[in-house]
Amino acid sequence: MNDFIYYAPTKVYFGKDKENEVGKIIKDYGYKTIMMQYGKESIKKIGLYDRVMKSLKDNEIEVIEMGGVEPNPKVEFVREAIKVAKENKVEMILAVGGGSVIDSSKATAAGAMCDFDVWKFSSGEETPKAALPVGCILTLAAAGSEMSASAVLTDLSINMKRGYGSEFNRCKFAICNPELTYSVNKYNTACGIVDIMAHTMERYFTPVDDTPLTDSIAESILKSVIDAGKVLMTDPENYEARATVMWASSLSHNDLTGCGRANYLAVHQLEHALSGEFDFVAHGAGLAVLFPAWAKYIYKHNIKRFSQFARNVWNVKETDDEKCAIKGIECMEEFFKSLGMPTTLKEIGISNENAEKMALLCTFNKKRTIKSFVELDYEIIKDIFEMC
Amino acid sequence: MNDFIYYAPTKVYFGKDKENEVGKIIKDYGYKTIMMQYGKESIKKIGLYDRVMKSLKDNEIEVIEMGGVEPNPKVEFVREAIKVAKENKVEMILAVGGGSVIDSSKATAAGAMCDFDVWKFSSGEETPKAALPVGCILTLAAAGSEMSASAVLTDLSINMKRGYGSEFNRCKFAICNPELTYSVNKYNTACGIVDIMAHTMERYFTPVDDTPLTDSIAESILKSVIDAGKVLMTDPENYEARATVMWASSLSHNDLTGCGRANYLAVHQLEHALSGEFDFVAHGAGLAVLFPAWAKYIYKHNIKRFSQFARNVWNVKETDDEKCAIKGIECMEEFFKSLGMPTTLKEIGISNENAEKMALLCTFNKKRTIKSFVELDYEIIKDIFEMC
Repeated sequence: MNDFIYYAPTKVYFGKDKENEVGKIIKDYGYKTIMMQYGKESIKKIGLYDRVMKSLKDNEIEVIEMGGVEPNPKVEFVREAIKVAKENKVEMILAVGGGSVIDSSKATAAGAMCDFDVWKFSSGEETPKAALPVGCILTLAAAGSEMSASAVLTDLSINMKRGYGSEFNRCKFAICNPELTYSVNKYNTACGIVDIMAHTMERYFTPVDDTPLTDSIAESILKSVIDAGKVLMTDPENYEARATVMWASSLSHNDLTGCGRANYLAVHQLEHALSGEFDFVAHGAGLAVLFPAWAKYIYKHNIKRFSQFARNVWNVKETDDEKCAIKGIECMEEFFKSLGMPTTLKEIGISNENAEKMALLCTFNKKRTIKSFVELDYEIIKDIFEMC
Repeated sequence: MNDFIYYAPTKVYFGKDKENEVGKIIKDYGYKTIMMQYGKESIKKIGLYDRVMKSLKDNEIEVIEMGGVEPNPKVEFVREAIKVAKENKVEMILAVGGGSVIDSSKATAAGAMCDFDVWKFSSGEETPKAALPVGCILTLAAAGSEMSASAVLTDLSINMKRGYGSEFNRCKFAICNPELTYSVNKYNTACGIVDIMAHTMERYFTPVDDTPLTDSIAESILKSVIDAGKVLMTDPENYEARATVMWASSLSHNDLTGCGRANYLAVHQLEHALSGEFDFVAHGAGLAVLFPAWAKYIYKHNIKRFSQFARNVWNVKETDDEKCAIKGIECMEEFFKSLGMPTTLKEIGISNENAEKMALLCTFNKKRTIKSFVELDYEIIKDIFEMC
């Protein structure tokens, strides 16, 4: 077991109708002027926008609106939001949406407290030293951004999608009402499930031994999400299944599943290159394509761990460890398919002739490698993309 | 699944030698004058006292010492500590010890910010509105106080041991070095294991359905602690087992195992009456006596849940649910015995002729009942103590 720091200070309000308490919650913190970020029209269609605005108004909160956050949130939008936040002296940011809206809000919150360009956090040139508080009302169970320390931005001008971690990226509060995800369609529900599983598996598949408690919690999250995911494919308004997936979303990425383990997120880094270059690729779909290929390439470096995964998560009974490991990966791939997820690049309309370009993007033109069971260098990453 | 609020903001520094960072951590928060509470001489024997004092001195922290916290911490001590804290204008409390020292520090921290007697928190007459920050260096994996919202005090003048919960009871930081628990003897290690399991089981055995993720995490904690506990009986300096038990201690009582479930802690309330009246009873030993008896009395009210416990935690293969439930309780009792724990009152030198007195204490002279699968009233509690 590795040493670790665990710090997940987000206060989670979980359950039905909790969004109606948002004004009271913000008032109790003492904030009077806030910025509210959201995406397109979907929060208006489900009536959420009106309920939130009413709660804020009832509690005399002044709201500066910034709608229009896009999937794979863009740094250009964040730059504009920072300008507005500074001009209006907003005291906190309220994100109403999924991971993109929350990430955009986190970057705005940190950018509003500094004088340099916000992309420097993503590029690694700077780290946040302060940030406005961020609260969120979650409408999509997927990214885990509501409790995570990470934020991911995209700069289309350089085709780059980059994440950065910081304690200042932790939301102060998160309002999680599973009913708000009833209207999420089957494809996006499935993308979310893959993302949640990926956050858990990224930490599970690292070269550290002797973390039985963390392993077992990770396996619990995976099994619960798999069971709930099967239910949601035919019964999208099943409260208990939506609730299980939503809570798993938070736990999968608040670092609980990584305690004592290495924290690499290798497949996420490959996927960020993919959806950074091909903006139409949903993050979860990109992960569904890349995870099985990465696993097939890498499992030989830790057959014991992959066979543990097969036995404890997928209930594979095979006694030969290597065969068992392979069957576990096949189960994962079959499950992704059963959710209607793509598992090849071709299915998402991308030729694997792009493998070279992807490998260059992932390695910043061969200037870095990515940590995993073995270091993923340009050649290996190209191979993995070719396998997709 | 019930609605819930999850809020566990304690920053946990977990791993070897982490206690040497305490001065730096406190300095970074900006505190200059602190009170340090600890128990008897054990922290001096293992060299911890010297290392902590050196780290504090190196970082120019002024320390007011309050040694001598007793097991089942006494309100008289806390009153004195509050006086000293006020006189010296201490800015935070550092607890170096186990649950008793941390609980004493929490009560001191809240008491230092009010003008009435601190027992009023325990009696329920008042709730904390503010508290000094508390940090801890954990030396015993058991109570989970390092991340919990609860504190338990004893007032010997009225033979009362009472806990109270408050957000202000959450430690700001917790330093958890499993090596510091190497010197804990077999009996106290076993008491800790029972306490950790009890914190998990108390939430598991409540009348709520449809919490598969929380259930599975609880089962993970129980299984991991059982496995690690077996190791520690013969190999007390096994780092991985000590680490598993220590991290389980924090997770068992930081509310993670209760998300979406009812939070009754019925057996704890029976045990508090027992060790409140008989001060020589270790909390874990009291729980080991009471939990099997309570379970045998109560299982009929939710055979499904007790059989799930038997199957998922103890791997009982029995197909008949009731037989399975009973076997699970037997497994728990046998495990406690294997740790050298008592499972009858007689073994701890108490006649079950005290059942009536215990039932009166638990019910405040028949003025309250305790929530469980069924309400535990005077008659039922008397029956349970007679079964012990």
